[in-house]
Amino acid sequence: MESENIADKKFQKELNAGTTALVLLATMKNSMEQLYGYQIAKHLESDSEGEPMIKQGALYPVLRSLENSGLLESQVEPSVSGPPRKYYKITKDGQMTLERWMEIWENTKLFVDSVLTGGKNG
Amino acid sequence: MESENIADKKFQKELNAGTTALVLLATMKNSMEQLYGYQIAKHLESDSEGEPMIKQGALYPVLRSLENSGLLESQVEPSVSGPPRKYYKITKDGQMTLERWMEIWENTKLFVDSVLTGGKNG
Repeated sequence: MESENIADKKFQKELNAGTTALVLLATMKNSMEQLYGYQIAKHLESDSEGEPMIKQGALYPVLRSLENSGLLESQVEPSVSGPPRKYYKITKDGQMTLERWMEIWENTKLFVDSVLTGGKNG
Repeated sequence: MESENIADKKFQKELNAGTTALVLLATMKNSMEQLYGYQIAKHLESDSEGEPMIKQGALYPVLRSLENSGLLESQVEPSVSGPPRKYYKITKDGQMTLERWMEIWENTKLFVDSVLTGGKNG
């Protein structure tokens, strides 16, 4: 049914909205080099099966927000083949934040999964 | 630092916003009886360690949204000790939706964890 797809898409979109910042920080932490938006999108596509979990257009506002919070920093560099590119790298603060967010993510998974399996903890 | 707490709270809040509808559907599916808001909040507290993952005030808008989407249905019943209570139960459509959302949740976990561990799939 059409309504199922709408509800499912809304749910996936809300989940993604909650995880994108974590995913981007981790991607930048694990990258050996600075990346610009299109490269980040390509990295994430290679981690997704089928349709990319996070659409490219959804990355840019989160990249800007992470930069505004001091968790990423960027540098604009000219490109031979087009307009200048904004390269991102993770800051020291971003790395420390990532550590804490990974713990928050683990706790959230534990909580959600304990509800899904209908059990109490312990 | 104060700024760390703000970033962490924002992250936790966004994660919760993405998972609350799933958690509520699962809670209602697993409950043997109809529940009203306060009871649902208590159920979720018993699944959380320490501070409840989802605050009670955050439940009501999601309950209403799930009801508007036909995934929950409600019935108002008088209470001897106070104002009438709105009891919720999951609908057939809600149960089918929950099955699909659990799959979306599994896939999202796999994707996020694959990025966090820095590996490609497969």
